[in-house]
Amino acid sequence: MASKPIATLDTSLIPRLPPSSPTLFEAKKNKSLSFEAIAKEVGRDEVAIAALFYGQAQASPEDIEKLSQVLDIPAEQLESQLSGYPDRGRTMDMPPKEPLIYRLYEIVQNYGYAYKAVLNEKFGDGIMSAISFSTKVEKETDEKGDWAVITLRGKW
Amino acid sequence: MASKPIATLDTSLIPRLPPSSPTLFEAKKNKSLSFEAIAKEVGRDEVAIAALFYGQAQASPEDIEKLSQVLDIPAEQLESQLSGYPDRGRTMDMPPKEPLIYRLYEIVQNYGYAYKAVLNEKFGDGIMSAISFSTKVEKETDEKGDWAVITLRGKW
Amino acid sequence: MASKPIATLDTSLIPRLPPSSPTLFEAKKNKSLSFEAIAKEVGRDEVAIAALFYGQAQASPEDIEKLSQVLDIPAEQLESQLSGYPDRGRTMDMPPKEPLIYRLYEIVQNYGYAYKAVLNEKFGDGIMSAISFSTKVEKETDEKGDWAVITLRGKW
Amino acid sequence: MASKPIATLDTSLIPRLPPSSPTLFEAKKNKSLSFEAIAKEVGRDEVAIAALFYGQAQASPEDIEKLSQVLDIPAEQLESQLSGYPDRGRTMDMPPKEPLIYRLYEIVQNYGYAYKAVLNEKFGDGIMSAISFSTKVEKETDEKGDWAVITLRGKW
Amino acid sequence: MASKPIATLDTSLIPRLPPSSPTLFEAKKNKSLSFEAIAKEVGRDEVAIAALFYGQAQASPEDIEKLSQVLDIPAEQLESQLSGYPDRGRTMDMPPKEPLIYRLYEIVQNYGYAYKAVLNEKFGDGIMSAISFSTKVEKETDEKGDWAVITLRGKW
Amino acid sequence: MASKPIATLDTSLIPRLPPSSPTLFEAKKNKSLSFEAIAKEVGRDEVAIAALFYGQAQASPEDIEKLSQVLDIPAEQLESQLSGYPDRGRTMDMPPKEPLIYRLYEIVQNYGYAYKAVLNEKFGDGIMSAISFSTKVEKETDEKGDWAVITLRGKW
Amino acid sequence: MASKPIATLDTSLIPRLPPSSPTLFEAKKNKSLSFEAIAKEVGRDEVAIAALFYGQAQASPEDIEKLSQVLDIPAEQLESQLSGYPDRGRTMDMPPKEPLIYRLYEIVQNYGYAYKAVLNEKFGDGIMSAISFSTKVEKETDEKGDWAVITLRGKW
Amino acid sequence: MASKPIATLDTSLIPRLPPSSPTLFEAKKNKSLSFEAIAKEVGRDEVAIAALFYGQAQASPEDIEKLSQVLDIPAEQLESQLSGYPDRGRTMDMPPKEPLIYRLYEIVQNYGYAYKAVLNEKFGDGIMSAISFSTKVEKETDEKGDWAVITLRGKW
Amino acid sequence: MASKPIATLDTSLIPRLPPSSPTLFEAKKNKSLSFEAIAKEVGRDEVAIAALFYGQAQASPEDIEKLSQVLDIPAEQLESQLSGYPDRGRTMDMPPKEPLIYRLYEIVQNYGYAYKAVLNEKFGDGIMSAISFSTKVEKETDEKGDWAVITLRGKW
Amino acid sequence: MASKPIATLDTSLIPRLPPSSPTLFEAKKNKSLSFEAIAKEVGRDEVAIAALFYGQAQASPEDIEKLSQVLDIPAEQLESQLSGYPDRGRTMDMPPKEPLIYRLYEIVQNYGYAYKAVLNEKFGDGIMSAISFSTKVEKETDEKGDWAVITLRGKW
Repeated sequence: MASKPIATLDTSLIPRLPPSSPTLFEAKKNKSLSFEAIAKEVGRDEVAIAALFYGQAQASPEDIEKLSQVLDIPAEQLESQLSGYPDRGRTMDMPPKEPLIYRLYEIVQNYGYAYKAVLNEKFGDGIMSAISFSTKVEKETDEKGDWAVITLRGKW
Repeated sequence: MASKPIATLDTSLIPRLPPSSPTLFEAKKNKSLSFEAIAKEVGRDEVAIAALFYGQAQASPEDIEKLSQVLDIPAEQLESQLSGYPDRGRTMDMPPKEPLIYRLYEIVQNYGYAYKAVLNEKFGDGIMSAISFSTKVEKETDEKGDWAVITLRGKW
Repeated sequence: MASKPIATLDTSLIPRLPPSSPTLFEAKKNKSLSFEAIAKEVGRDEVAIAALFYGQAQASPEDIEKLSQVLDIPAEQLESQLSGYPDRGRTMDMPPKEPLIYRLYEIVQNYGYAYKAVLNEKFGDGIMSAISFSTKVEKETDEKGDWAVITLRGKW
Repeated sequence: MASKPIATLDTSLIPRLPPSSPTLFEAKKNKSLSFEAIAKEVGRDEVAIAALFYGQAQASPEDIEKLSQVLDIPAEQLESQLSGYPDRGRTMDMPPKEPLIYRLYEIVQNYGYAYKAVLNEKFGDGIMSAISFSTKVEKETDEKGDWAVITLRGKW
Repeated sequence: MASKPIATLDTSLIPRLPPSSPTLFEAKKNKSLSFEAIAKEVGRDEVAIAALFYGQAQASPEDIEKLSQVLDIPAEQLESQLSGYPDRGRTMDMPPKEPLIYRLYEIVQNYGYAYKAVLNEKFGDGIMSAISFSTKVEKETDEKGDWAVITLRGKW
Repeated sequence: MASKPIATLDTSLIPRLPPSSPTLFEAKKNKSLSFEAIAKEVGRDEVAIAALFYGQAQASPEDIEKLSQVLDIPAEQLESQLSGYPDRGRTMDMPPKEPLIYRLYEIVQNYGYAYKAVLNEKFGDGIMSAISFSTKVEKETDEKGDWAVITLRGKW
Repeated sequence: MASKPIATLDTSLIPRLPPSSPTLFEAKKNKSLSFEAIAKEVGRDEVAIAALFYGQAQASPEDIEKLSQVLDIPAEQLESQLSGYPDRGRTMDMPPKEPLIYRLYEIVQNYGYAYKAVLNEKFGDGIMSAISFSTKVEKETDEKGDWAVITLRGKW
Repeated sequence: MASKPIATLDTSLIPRLPPSSPTLFEAKKNKSLSFEAIAKEVGRDEVAIAALFYGQAQASPEDIEKLSQVLDIPAEQLESQLSGYPDRGRTMDMPPKEPLIYRLYEIVQNYGYAYKAVLNEKFGDGIMSAISFSTKVEKETDEKGDWAVITLRGKW
Repeated sequence: MASKPIATLDTSLIPRLPPSSPTLFEAKKNKSLSFEAIAKEVGRDEVAIAALFYGQAQASPEDIEKLSQVLDIPAEQLESQLSGYPDRGRTMDMPPKEPLIYRLYEIVQNYGYAYKAVLNEKFGDGIMSAISFSTKVEKETDEKGDWAVITLRGKW
Repeated sequence: MASKPIATLDTSLIPRLPPSSPTLFEAKKNKSLSFEAIAKEVGRDEVAIAALFYGQAQASPEDIEKLSQVLDIPAEQLESQLSGYPDRGRTMDMPPKEPLIYRLYEIVQNYGYAYKAVLNEKFGDGIMSAISFSTKVEKETDEKGDWAVITLRGKW
């Protein structure tokens, strides 16, 4: 994985993001750290860390302290920029134009009713929380090639 | 699970679905079968079976044969209605109005860029297929209650 | 209140509703029952009963039994039409065109961020459930006239 | 509640807000005041104060005077920025992308017709004002956890 | 005015209207009555009568009785079709495609802020009711030709 | 009316307006003039003056001269900023989010077909001009309170 | 031109059209008449006749009489279906999907401001009527091939 | 025509236009030239010149040279800003909000199918080019007043 | 290829299609013919034949004759249903929901400007016709698997 | 081809593009290089190079090195601006307003189902990748003039 470029921030996205996002991504780029590496240091899942970078998750005081250390950002600046509560959902317009993100959207569009039917039969009427929720991305490799495995786990 | 009602088809959805959908759902209701039960008989995952009921997946000749047996539908009728190729994606308008399906949409809206960043760092530039793709729903229970676990597995 | 007409179903809405809706509304009209009267008999809140009539809430077996009695609808017919799980959210397009419903929409549009800020300060980061949720409508009268009081109560 | 972070302003929202909003939020952040604390000083409900911060409510001369004192903002500056009439409704696009605000929107989408039917039966044909209107947020706690209770009270 | 054709109902609008609309318009056409003539008999303004024909206003028992007489419609049928509360706003999609209605929409689009500014200066912060509201259409003729004069009168 | 605040310009609207708008509104605010006062001096209706401030109406050379005097703006600057022809309609997106302006929009949505039917019966096939058009706002007060009266007068 | 097929009505358009449209088009098809031929008989321009067929123009009593003769439709039926006033603009959604109609839309999109600037310089502030308006289509042929020439003539 | 003001550029349009647009319009304003005057000098139709000013048409080297002379803009600057190919269609969103441009849009909306039917009957299946295309605006005056005549001429 | 199912018509599409579409698809299904087979008999490209089935291309008298023979449809019926001119573009809403069609849409979204730049450099300012246009689909197979090759050829 | 102007960047597009785009286009303009010339030097197809300029394709280290040489851009600057992964699809809103790009969109709209039917019959159920995908533009000339030929080749 070392040879893959790390993810950086397309600066034309900045007007849609909180001020913490360019701060965090710039430090990540300067230190050439992957989300996996940062996540290990902070002790959280890497998707959660990436969501935090995009302003989609709240940082705890411990997260801020560790991010400050790992990324060499003054703790005070991070605290100020990450104070308050995330204003979620504004990073993009729907439908997503990015092909990779669109594929996830397409899964919801095509399988939405199938998920609902199976979830209802398993759990009864109700809903899967998208907030009391965790998610992870894994890589599996078999003879057919690489597979991306995304797991969503939400409280019913 | 036996005590949960089975999923049925809201008839106001019919104009958006292929003719196979009301046929299949009516038989399912008459026989009081859950997707889990049907899936076991047909030998496919229950989300795939539900997707097939909603016209989102292609039925193989074996699927048709088994569905015909399990659901007591004349094979000829099923063959005729399930011939051809699925015209996917028309079961609903986006954004989804159904709260349960909306939660999945919201996950894409909020976590889209986080997934992309982590997937890119793990796999490089590219895309996760939404076609060469499988998915399943599982139920986990711990002291906090029930958890719905959805797994998406797509070829990179 | 006896002199107010009861609410009936605009038949041009029927294509957006499950088959149970015209059945229930027709019986309600024939028996000239208000939602308040039905709710008292069934033992649930009247907004919940109205939501059930519009296909937005799931009926328990007890609900079905009582509705069948109060409304003189054969239990079998109601059971068949109310089986399965509600496919919520399809009764109207947003923004609502109906002025009374639009006022509620406008409150969300104008006060949305204010609610979020106050809720976050009171509860921390998180969300108010729209599912594990109850709501009621009350009438208050003072020297200035009548006031409609709507209460939303959701699990955090 | 003291341990909860206070609500601050996501600076990427500023282009949608009047100039008073960043002034007020910056002072609130500098003084570490919750809306509850400010509301107590000003003598108004905390949702109304939050709405005023987001440019959704008009400030009376008394409000301006008290806000100036509580927040240490020169009265002249506040008077100038809060003069005129609020241009309401522009803080966000609908449907709301923020999950917490979306839940309120979803309640309108799902319960809209149920509210209308019950309100009509209680009050006759007419409308609940969204202007001659007050609202509050309360926190209730029982063995199941915390509950957010939102009350809307509008002139009929 | 006698030589002007009377307004009739474009039948392709029927799916958007309550069942009372085709009943009323058909009788109006059969009796060749203008809205002015009907309004005189019923004792209401002609715009209000037209709104009632399109399902946008509630009919009182007296309205129903008079309409039944003027239009030779069995009172029972009218009572049944006009019972309940109007579900307003669904006769058309916005922006209006009809050029005549579009002109009114365009006035709102172009003069909206000017009306708001002048209304605010005259009445203070607040709103003009669109419900506790009356409106009329008059014809004036001068040397330049005919002028349509529309008056809106709403409670502040 | 003297005690009502005057209308000012929400600066977040500026990117949608021609350069004359902030010039005019700033001078109005500095001189504390209502539209009524300015209109009297310029000799035009106050809604027309407000429309001119928002870039929705063309200023004649006389208007420019008088506005320059009343508002103490160098005539040259006004002439340069008000030269050319208004590019109308861009002050807001439709549907209007501002509640006061929305009420006017709602009147069009609900009464559109009723206006058309009555206008057609009075004038025959044709259209009311939104350009060769004048409009005014008046205040009436009776025992029920204040009423806003808006009159639209357009060439047929 | 005799060898060109005549224009007929795509029956899937019928739900968007008044009942006169299928009547007129069916008769036109049965008699194999082009709009040019009908227009000559009726004595109006062929675009106006086509607009009338699509419900976009009002028929005078003379038009109805002549159409009845040319197309062998009982006068009574035509009178009944063409009574009232056209409800214009509903034949299609915008942007037009039909490529030929889209080209006209594209001309407005690309040349809109250029037309406005030139019209304003020629006529001053104002508007070209789309109602007091006539239009025609002509065919010119030169060495480069055929040219379609569309002329719009509207009262300023 | 000398007494009509010339068309200038609303500066709030600039973010939608190429850099050549403000350059050209500013010079036009400084020299007080109408499009008619410029067109005569450049030797092209005035609508084409206006389209070029709005970035909707490509300038030939001769156009650039003549525009540079007529408008006193350094040739080098014009060459640099007008190099490349026009990125057409971005000057406005559809539907047009400007009333004058909307009238053209409305003509397409109402007469679209009529144009198509007549064009098809005259030319067979095919399309009128919006690219190999010319257009002009003329002014006609008769006893009823002024008429704007727009001619579109496109290759079939 | 013989073992692949042939394409049939999802009947829920029928309301968007001309009456010829279900006629043609039903005959195709009854005779179990692929588009390739039909195209060979008719002597046109198979994409053109498929487009004709979906009402997107005009059938010549020869096409109609051959289709009538190949598909055993009475010539008279086909002539009647295929007379007139295609009303193109209404088979689906954009963006396409069908994943396979969406991929083509995505190519336009992502590569649109790149195509334009390269086409402009190769051909100058202008446009590729989508009407004087042909297209074909081919299958290539190499060690990596199957490749779909779509060729678009349009007059500049 | 030498006499055709080269493609440049409309600067009003810059806010939608990554920072590499203006860097690359400015250098291209300064060196007067066509995409064909750059593509030859870099050893990739010219559409791929154009896509890379618009931020729609990832640059390999070799691409960066060669582009740096051909365009005289410091390698370090290019590396920094082209690091990370492309955030595709944001160069324009759909439907495309640019006429040349719209033609491609129109082909998808009109031929979408025809392509799907033929592809399904040739390849079975599945999808053509828009990622594992290559495309090229060619120019063909015959007696009828120039033809643009676009080839899409995607993995099934």
